[in-house]
Amino acid sequence: MSDSFSSSDSVRHARPLKHVQHAVFDDPLELEYGGRLPRLTVTYETYGRLNQRRDNAILLCHALSGDSHVAQHDERDDPGWWDLAVGPGKSIDTDRYFVVCPNVLGGCRGTTGPNSTNPRTDRPYGAEFPVITVGDIVRVQKLLMDRLGIERLLAVVGASLGGHMVLDWATRFPDQVAGAVAIATSPRPTSQALAFDIVGRNAILRDPHYCGGQYYGNGPGPAVGLALARMLGHITYLSREAMTQKFDASRLEPQEVQTLFEARFNVGSYLAYQGDRFVERFDANSYLRLTMAMDLFDLGDSPAKVAKALCASRCRWLVVSFSTDWLFPPFQSQEIVRALLTADKPVSYCSVTTDCGHDAFLLPNELAVYGGITSAFLDNLHTDSREPVSADAATIAEAADGENHGPTSIYRHHRLDYDSILRLVPPGASVLDLGCGTGGLLTRLRDNGHYRLVGVELDERAILTSVRRGLDVVQMDLNRGLEDFSDGQFDCVILSQTLQAVTDVKRVLADVLRVGRQGIVSFPNLAYSRWREELAEHGRAPQVEATEGFHWYDTPNVRFFSIADFEQLCAQENIRIDQRIAVNTESNRIVFENPNLAADVAVFSVSRSGSARQKAVWGA
Amino acid sequence: MSDSFSSSDSVRHARPLKHVQHAVFDDPLELEYGGRLPRLTVTYETYGRLNQRRDNAILLCHALSGDSHVAQHDERDDPGWWDLAVGPGKSIDTDRYFVVCPNVLGGCRGTTGPNSTNPRTDRPYGAEFPVITVGDIVRVQKLLMDRLGIERLLAVVGASLGGHMVLDWATRFPDQVAGAVAIATSPRPTSQALAFDIVGRNAILRDPHYCGGQYYGNGPGPAVGLALARMLGHITYLSREAMTQKFDASRLEPQEVQTLFEARFNVGSYLAYQGDRFVERFDANSYLRLTMAMDLFDLGDSPAKVAKALCASRCRWLVVSFSTDWLFPPFQSQEIVRALLTADKPVSYCSVTTDCGHDAFLLPNELAVYGGITSAFLDNLHTDSREPVSADAATIAEAADGENHGPTSIYRHHRLDYDSILRLVPPGASVLDLGCGTGGLLTRLRDNGHYRLVGVELDERAILTSVRRGLDVVQMDLNRGLEDFSDGQFDCVILSQTLQAVTDVKRVLADVLRVGRQGIVSFPNLAYSRWREELAEHGRAPQVEATEGFHWYDTPNVRFFSIADFEQLCAQENIRIDQRIAVNTESNRIVFENPNLAADVAVFSVSRSGSARQKAVWGA
Repeated sequence: MSDSFSSSDSVRHARPLKHVQHAVFDDPLELEYGGRLPRLTVTYETYGRLNQRRDNAILLCHALSGDSHVAQHDERDDPGWWDLAVGPGKSIDTDRYFVVCPNVLGGCRGTTGPNSTNPRTDRPYGAEFPVITVGDIVRVQKLLMDRLGIERLLAVVGASLGGHMVLDWATRFPDQVAGAVAIATSPRPTSQALAFDIVGRNAILRDPHYCGGQYYGNGPGPAVGLALARMLGHITYLSREAMTQKFDASRLEPQEVQTLFEARFNVGSYLAYQGDRFVERFDANSYLRLTMAMDLFDLGDSPAKVAKALCASRCRWLVVSFSTDWLFPPFQSQEIVRALLTADKPVSYCSVTTDCGHDAFLLPNELAVYGGITSAFLDNLHTDSREPVSADAATIAEAADGENHGPTSIYRHHRLDYDSILRLVPPGASVLDLGCGTGGLLTRLRDNGHYRLVGVELDERAILTSVRRGLDVVQMDLNRGLEDFSDGQFDCVILSQTLQAVTDVKRVLADVLRVGRQGIVSFPNLAYSRWREELAEHGRAPQVEATEGFHWYDTPNVRFFSIADFEQLCAQENIRIDQRIAVNTESNRIVFENPNLAADVAVFSVSRSGSARQKAVWGA
Repeated sequence: MSDSFSSSDSVRHARPLKHVQHAVFDDPLELEYGGRLPRLTVTYETYGRLNQRRDNAILLCHALSGDSHVAQHDERDDPGWWDLAVGPGKSIDTDRYFVVCPNVLGGCRGTTGPNSTNPRTDRPYGAEFPVITVGDIVRVQKLLMDRLGIERLLAVVGASLGGHMVLDWATRFPDQVAGAVAIATSPRPTSQALAFDIVGRNAILRDPHYCGGQYYGNGPGPAVGLALARMLGHITYLSREAMTQKFDASRLEPQEVQTLFEARFNVGSYLAYQGDRFVERFDANSYLRLTMAMDLFDLGDSPAKVAKALCASRCRWLVVSFSTDWLFPPFQSQEIVRALLTADKPVSYCSVTTDCGHDAFLLPNELAVYGGITSAFLDNLHTDSREPVSADAATIAEAADGENHGPTSIYRHHRLDYDSILRLVPPGASVLDLGCGTGGLLTRLRDNGHYRLVGVELDERAILTSVRRGLDVVQMDLNRGLEDFSDGQFDCVILSQTLQAVTDVKRVLADVLRVGRQGIVSFPNLAYSRWREELAEHGRAPQVEATEGFHWYDTPNVRFFSIADFEQLCAQENIRIDQRIAVNTESNRIVFENPNLAADVAVFSVSRSGSARQKAVWGA
């Protein structure tokens, strides 16, 4: 038994240790903030089997108060903290993957931490345990991977503080990671999150029983301070909505708990219980060191700095956030995504709609989305980088069922205008598809040999399907602008049947031509003969979207314009029209004569130009 | 000098007391949660002069950590906590109003509280001070008003916990209040807000120096616990955005503060400073009792209960919230507003856009809005209830300058369709005007003798102007539905040039006919001859909004439809058309023949009916 584990006796209710393994490292570890640890023990658990090619290993990084026991090993085993997502046939499928979950450096569940014996003094480190960083934690995890003979991880997966480890892994050991899954995390804590940690640490440090950190076997320890810190933490893990649902109806009916804390309100009895229980299983010095590691984690305070920090990575990325998470809010995940996009890294991103707050990743409510997208992402990973990705036939068939080019699009069926768009994309061009839906167009482009393809979509389910297809798709609202993309980042930006559904037409068009050297824009032509007739002869609003079952009062479209209107706007905005194709989808033919009357859909290839140019002819 | 003031020696840095006045009440006060106080002292300060009619008195209710010193009395005086808003010529103009601000019951700045001497034991009450409620605080304030000979207050004004007092005053003493201004408050704390208070109280109660509450003259007292509670409170008073702006750039550069708290981070040094300073001026037992009063405040957990609680009020209301306030979020103010609307009480409401969070009401950033609207509201109050309100000529002229019927409306000029709308409103009808802008139409209705008038508007500045005009206007987004209004609440609901700018046309129409017995809807007619021509002959999108300078790509309108389209929708949705007026605004005449071709604007009077009815003729 390792040095550190024996000293974890201070944790009163340790779980059975049957499946817990230990690795001891006798070389000293120099720490990033100074100090060194002469000897290390790492406690870890594994699930599934490492295959012969050693290319199915997933490292799971736990959050602040987690440990190595991520899941049950068998039915009689204690519950794990992520049984929901990890196990045979689950999102992280231990029938397919070899999952390793070590307790982190500085923790109190076996891996060397403040409650481990300091070989220099032969008593627990206590406050003498040095300040550690996420980088230190990751370097210790790397030692373990080396010991296990895992040269390259299929993926590193983590949420919250575990997500910080994912970010560090992917950049510190870029050649050792094929996929990075960063859930509910951030480039740095917000000042608000930092402030909560500081109050929690102060509650511990100023607890008279803290005794300068040497409280082991010396009185009750800073139980009140640690419980207060945990109560506070718990508030930040839940959303306001979740707390309302949980406690509002029976506000004045506390649960019966044995506690010295205030228990007049229901929420108070809950917090008291959480605080008291935490003290039984967690060490205050670990809490101090691990929250400090989180607070010191900092990829930079500007998009450029974060991009610089992440540009070393060579893996594929999946970033997931939760809509009501206010500890690590979605905008922080979006900062990560933006940095990755700026650095031209392959990334998918989804902000999962939920009431559950930061803790959503531990709860079943949205498992279908966050677990589904994680599973889909892992399915499409290969440790051989640059191996072309292609989803299996069943997935594609499922995805194509009800194919739909963006939830904002009014068209549901295969149409000639799609073929026209594909013809306008130069061979091998990198493509950004705005409003990509379930990824139909991108899949066709991939089949045509295009390599760098990115989709933007708003709908969670459509993103899930796209990720299943092995595509890189990020969630984004076009109306908020494309600032996540840099100038000239793509050869080609596609806006297929989407422009009529955005409010700020000029801004979106300007963004298309800023980000792409070429823009391909298709839209319904309001001046199509049948629609002219509806207004002129019958005095009715043209039902541009009638074939899709929409009416003037419920169409997703908010802008109505003709080919002539679009061309005038292009002239006015100094947009050069390079090619244009007019389509009559009713007769399924290309239109060459009088397109503003004869075509119901137009496809334009446009670019930004200072110099005037001959007007493009109508082409096919 | 009163009993309680001498015992406030425990507050080390008491301010000069030159302007502080005391009232002593020798009758015992029975408290709502049991217990009694045999004798009371109330400390208060006054500003301005009570006029002869005694009808210019405003009661100011301070928040958790405030006191009676709301503003400087003269240049040499200490700063007050609301100098920004209270003083000669300021929002709450002490040249016009007589402002009274008492320290609250249970406080520690002179009014009887836990640090006052308990006459029964001759030592400070300490923890023996009974649990108090907002109602108890208000009853003590009422004693003071009686002592000052103020029979009816022009207004009660308060923010946060002070806002709870406003809510209580208006319902407990409905005949004594003409106007209620409730800022950044709520019908009850959210469970999240409650949870923060609980952690703060636990930090005090479990501080070993709390000594069961009898720490006066007995060691340092629970200074650490109180400081922790204050740090935590401070986080909740600031928005995340404000903390980012304040601390992110210099995260690792703490201010130099003398403190025993952690000061590694800039935000930490700030919190430490706030915590340490608070201990010097506030009493922990007061903190316990006042936060408990806030946490026990509860108008009910459903809209119906809140409405029932507020229906006793007989004053005019102004409710103000701040967009980034997450302690008392805008939705809680909206619950109050909804309850008042349900109970048919006159109310204006504005959610002020700000980065400043809950503390916005103490900061200059948005003073022009929250101070401006408070001042405008006070200007239009009269202690003689039911006195007709009419703003002065200058205000009306200012408001009418650039008159605009709703920010979403495309028309800026006086038009014949407005006259048509006014003609359709039955004499004396109660009217709800959706998208009322600066209140032009409502002002005309008021001039015509209509009494019950309510406006709905989204734009802050337009609301401010409407309130200046003495109108009741609430901020609301029509696209989110009109659930704040009950069935059949108004004789008439007007939707003037607004329907074409809402997304969910059917929902808004249904709401109009649910809330009003009659709906009056005006909109531009897409099938007007000139617009037909634009599409039919020139192949261009009809520029319905061209006269206002908008184009197809930037119009606020998102729905385009003709008179015929609207009539078909009415038929389909079982909406009865009672009257219709077609207008040609270009020739400024009413159209009787072929309106769907000859009119550019239509005005419909509609109602909900199960029975079919003769189709209305085109009228004038």
